[in-house]
Amino acid sequence: MDVEVFLTSHILTEEDVTGRTVVVVDVLRASASILTALKNGARDVVPVADMAAASKIASNLDPSGYRLGGERDGYRIEGYHLGNSPLEYTEEQVQGRTIILNTTNGTRAIEQARAARHLLIGSFLNAERVVDFIEQAGCDATIVCAGTRNRVSLEDTLCAGLMLYRLWAGEEPPGGVSDTAYMAFTQYRNDKDDLKMALRHCNHAQWLRANGFAADVDYCMQIDTLPVLPYYTENRLVLFDESLTESAE
Amino acid sequence: MDVEVFLTSHILTEEDVTGRTVVVVDVLRASASILTALKNGARDVVPVADMAAASKIASNLDPSGYRLGGERDGYRIEGYHLGNSPLEYTEEQVQGRTIILNTTNGTRAIEQARAARHLLIGSFLNAERVVDFIEQAGCDATIVCAGTRNRVSLEDTLCAGLMLYRLWAGEEPPGGVSDTAYMAFTQYRNDKDDLKMALRHCNHAQWLRANGFAADVDYCMQIDTLPVLPYYTENRLVLFDESLTESAE
Repeated sequence: MDVEVFLTSHILTEEDVTGRTVVVVDVLRASASILTALKNGARDVVPVADMAAASKIASNLDPSGYRLGGERDGYRIEGYHLGNSPLEYTEEQVQGRTIILNTTNGTRAIEQARAARHLLIGSFLNAERVVDFIEQAGCDATIVCAGTRNRVSLEDTLCAGLMLYRLWAGEEPPGGVSDTAYMAFTQYRNDKDDLKMALRHCNHAQWLRANGFAADVDYCMQIDTLPVLPYYTENRLVLFDESLTESAE
Repeated sequence: MDVEVFLTSHILTEEDVTGRTVVVVDVLRASASILTALKNGARDVVPVADMAAASKIASNLDPSGYRLGGERDGYRIEGYHLGNSPLEYTEEQVQGRTIILNTTNGTRAIEQARAARHLLIGSFLNAERVVDFIEQAGCDATIVCAGTRNRVSLEDTLCAGLMLYRLWAGEEPPGGVSDTAYMAFTQYRNDKDDLKMALRHCNHAQWLRANGFAADVDYCMQIDTLPVLPYYTENRLVLFDESLTESAE
């Protein structure tokens, strides 16, 4: 099985994802918000790339049936119910509702990966669950790091590296892997014994800590504590169950 | 002194380079071709982004006074004197001549970094020379990896990491460095004791080896064997000498 890594999403083409299991990783914080919303009973999460798309979807729903969530430059969008802090996506807020999620990097990465055979959301929180899915699906996989403003981010790279480390059982990378897969793997292997220290280097984590979102950072950096699997189908993310892949066969 | 790293060049903005020492790194193979041409007595190297620009410059020069060099997808452009193999840039070919160089990634990176205070070409071959310049210039620095087709390449990242390792004297990165600088540094530190093995992983090196350019790869991967410094001034690269920075002050 070939496993490819994109360190940023903006150069992703349809060819890069077609027929593959694609995992979009946006550690800080879209992945965690999506995972938390679905774990807390949201009906589905609809990722959108801009405010116009968000408003259009909202206008077709009963006001009690949805929540608008999203951020620009880290802060909640004015007039939205929720920001991009996963801790806001409580059962009370999301239970039984559609979450329309508008975020800078994560949503765009999802949009660019729509042509995937399986499209999942990954983070540290559900890393093992993602790895299990990739192994069971058996097709080639692509891990897409959302990055921050088109730039490579350390936290997404480390998360991709963790997944590779588990897929490759901690050994050397197989021959013929891409430069970026090799880099994500060695970055994680280098930092894994003091991951907390490495994650302290992350520029976006530093920004979040300095701007009142320290609890979010601590939450998003936990490994395997939220073993749920957001799966993309019919323009929205839902909790994965087997019937979804049966219909995709 | 702040040192920033871009793992690919295509997101570079004028703001990222203004007032800084900028080093463009395209290990395979543009940097090596430029270094070799200037070391072997070329008058200057004019980097261009496309064939139209190359032809326009050539049409204003005496035919004996220039050589057209460049590659597309690794191979020499039809009708050009030289490809992108540094070993072609012999004294016989280049002595006293202008080299018009048209390459996919390196040239574009140079074009995007034109607004720099000092713009240099770096590679493994002249790494120490580049580091010395950065330290003496004293202003903030940006190392721009050309990458391959907009994707991050391992060899350019390792070369940037080597420069950082020397600038930071092999210690931990200083606080507040960017995610990408941290990544390049740790990648190099991780691989430095068996750099040859790491470089064997490079996808583009593998492609070159498989397509008849193995000697180029071996040549480009040597460290500090060609301590010359290509410096960008008046739309062309020349060998650095002190008078160039005096005029820039």
